[in-house]
Amino acid sequence: MVTGLLYEFRRHNPENHIPGKDFFYILQYSHSVKIILAIIGPRRSRTKSDAAATLTADYLARASRYLACEAKAFDSEAALFIWLERQATRTAPVLALLDSRGKQFSSEEIAGEILRHRDHGTQTLVLAIGPADGWSGTTRSRAALVLSFGAITLPHELARVVLAEQIYRALTILAGHPYHTGH
Amino acid sequence: MVTGLLYEFRRHNPENHIPGKDFFYILQYSHSVKIILAIIGPRRSRTKSDAAATLTADYLARASRYLACEAKAFDSEAALFIWLERQATRTAPVLALLDSRGKQFSSEEIAGEILRHRDHGTQTLVLAIGPADGWSGTTRSRAALVLSFGAITLPHELARVVLAEQIYRALTILAGHPYHTGH
Repeated sequence: MVTGLLYEFRRHNPENHIPGKDFFYILQYSHSVKIILAIIGPRRSRTKSDAAATLTADYLARASRYLACEAKAFDSEAALFIWLERQATRTAPVLALLDSRGKQFSSEEIAGEILRHRDHGTQTLVLAIGPADGWSGTTRSRAALVLSFGAITLPHELARVVLAEQIYRALTILAGHPYHTGH
Repeated sequence: MVTGLLYEFRRHNPENHIPGKDFFYILQYSHSVKIILAIIGPRRSRTKSDAAATLTADYLARASRYLACEAKAFDSEAALFIWLERQATRTAPVLALLDSRGKQFSSEEIAGEILRHRDHGTQTLVLAIGPADGWSGTTRSRAALVLSFGAITLPHELARVVLAEQIYRALTILAGHPYHTGH
């Protein structure tokens, strides 16, 4: 099991392999936190959807080299909460909302939040992009974290791409991969 | 000339045509400010380039319904300045930089800046995304405006998409098109 994890890590990160640091990596990657990029609303929209969906899927695929990541679309906030209730086994999923009125995090701080939740035994971390008219007060009160990507308004399809990229970026920061500093 | 502009406006904005408001629109669209999305560095990068380039081109094409808009790539900051010097005819182009250390603008404020420059007779407004290692101090001192899209770090290819979308969004805000409020 441990050998398998290490093999997987080396295979995906040949540039990051540091002899003697294997145990650190095994510890780092043997935790089971899973990241869900949740979307409320239509899965696709009009003409730009293919390109935006391609970018989102690409960043999540790259993020999956580090931790299990997937996108899930929900018809409504209620549907998200039904799904969250069903997931709650040993530990309840942690819900973080993307909202323009939230707190602004740098990419390093987003990485810090993911690390903190993994170290606190969170099994599922849900990062959610709201419906077109914003999150309800009820949802906001149930979230562990409300984060903002700044003062500009982004369309949902672009917010998904940016969130997927930030998840990938955060995981490369935690792994010491040069993606964040190198480009 | 005026009839041609009005025809163009109506053709591209059938949903926005309000009888009696034609004179307003003629005034609004007869100014000649042109927006350049300038990029320092490689025009494309690796696997995600096609999807990001598609999104950028799509937003700029939509923005071009309102004002002349185009993307231009420069090899270096020096190449950008050589080009800027050549453009300076009656009025010098106005340079606005995208930089994480800049001032955060909301989408409405970006629209306000475009309006302000158009009303002040700016012929060319250059919105520029910097090289990988950030703008030089010299370039920053020559810019009319340094704006930031928030605390997160974005890869250049995504910054281009977001900037193109913000240009389109700003022009819809100025035109009263429901894109900004409707999604």
